[in-house]
Amino acid sequence: MIRTVTAAALLIGDELLSGRTQDTNLKTIATFIAPLGVQLQEARVVSDQPEAIAAAVNALRAAHDYVFTTGGIGPTHDDKTADAIAMAFGVSINVREDAKAILLAHYGGEDKLNEARLRMARIPDGASLIANPVSKAPGFQIGNVFVMAGVPSIMRGMLEDVGPRLRGGSVMQSLTLRCRGLREGDLAAGFAAIEERVPGVSLGSYPWFSPGGDFGVHLVARSQSPALLNEAAIAMEALARDLGATPERLGA
Amino acid sequence: MIRTVTAAALLIGDELLSGRTQDTNLKTIATFIAPLGVQLQEARVVSDQPEAIAAAVNALRAAHDYVFTTGGIGPTHDDKTADAIAMAFGVSINVREDAKAILLAHYGGEDKLNEARLRMARIPDGASLIANPVSKAPGFQIGNVFVMAGVPSIMRGMLEDVGPRLRGGSVMQSLTLRCRGLREGDLAAGFAAIEERVPGVSLGSYPWFSPGGDFGVHLVARSQSPALLNEAAIAMEALARDLGATPERLGA
Repeated sequence: MIRTVTAAALLIGDELLSGRTQDTNLKTIATFIAPLGVQLQEARVVSDQPEAIAAAVNALRAAHDYVFTTGGIGPTHDDKTADAIAMAFGVSINVREDAKAILLAHYGGEDKLNEARLRMARIPDGASLIANPVSKAPGFQIGNVFVMAGVPSIMRGMLEDVGPRLRGGSVMQSLTLRCRGLREGDLAAGFAAIEERVPGVSLGSYPWFSPGGDFGVHLVARSQSPALLNEAAIAMEALARDLGATPERLGA
Repeated sequence: MIRTVTAAALLIGDELLSGRTQDTNLKTIATFIAPLGVQLQEARVVSDQPEAIAAAVNALRAAHDYVFTTGGIGPTHDDKTADAIAMAFGVSINVREDAKAILLAHYGGEDKLNEARLRMARIPDGASLIANPVSKAPGFQIGNVFVMAGVPSIMRGMLEDVGPRLRGGSVMQSLTLRCRGLREGDLAAGFAAIEERVPGVSLGSYPWFSPGGDFGVHLVARSQSPALLNEAAIAMEALARDLGATPERLGA
């Protein structure tokens, strides 16, 4: 039985929308959850505005099994995610003792845990903490929403604590054929016919060009059924050979 | 008079959500439109599903002055953006002669312009073409929506034809202070006070860590008023010095 479990990502921060910061968290999340049987199906990027964050969280958590947010949980005034999540869930938010204890141990005493740092111990009611192996200030899970840091190394660390909480479905497997010298326009008809013929497989083609003038297409098949994936792959290889290419199977 | 013009980006493609492809178009669009006085305020990433594309386009075009889409306008069956945009606008879509002429000239004759390639000349009614200086197949503009290719070099080329069509507002200017050795938790209170004191400036802080153990914070001020931006910058520099750092002004 194929069972599909979906997720959305919500990337939070003015710096992503101003172009100051190149996001990499989307790809990290997608590739972390895929082998666990959770498919990223949608993502949004919003600014540091509580109303925008709350509206996006509520839209996404209603539409998907899981939501992963990144950014906005630090100690400064522009970190508004925790309050926005509390607003979205209609719960209150306060400094929580277990979160405070983690920060106290890290900063080494009440005198160093100033008001700003204590903000990072403010957790919406009903949430559970997500461990932060890098800089200690925790993320949290509330309902089906996982709230993580924006700094890529910290976010990646938090995923280790998130992974075991996910109940995945059938894993979406993929296969890539590298076809040097092929053009999309030449293979499109045959390629579409394969997708129609093999149910439960979705096919995508991605042209590539190298600076030296070399070019080709990556043909990608994705399916939750290994047998159907293989059937599509064999048909794709035959198509590429018919068109004069020597297809090369790449890993995932 | 400050006039704010906003935009949204819609990034289309399964490959962005599977983690196969690292998007770079968001940052390219953001940094291209910012000096033209158009602020990217929101972005979404959706899969190659016409309904998802159309719903996102309709939500975004109602909320912003401009919408920029990338991806899904190639010749293969997984390129569904043009049809989805026609659906979103409630107009029909057909092969258009001016678009076909561009492709004919590029491919060198009717015999090479097969049915798949001709798909790239299908343009929603009422749209104007966007020139593609790289691979010729055009993008299009319909209403306040600019539909561009997903391949970064092609998308970047299309922006050259899009730029002159934008009517921007006041430019959001920014300034970054690099503060080595500072920690967010130590500057948070003073930093928040500056934002409260200087109206029309938004402040963000972004910690950085180098592999060698060096660390610090980038303090970023953004404003549509150069005078207020400078006022905030002077206050930020004083704050950093008070905390023992030697702030360094970086360009934008």
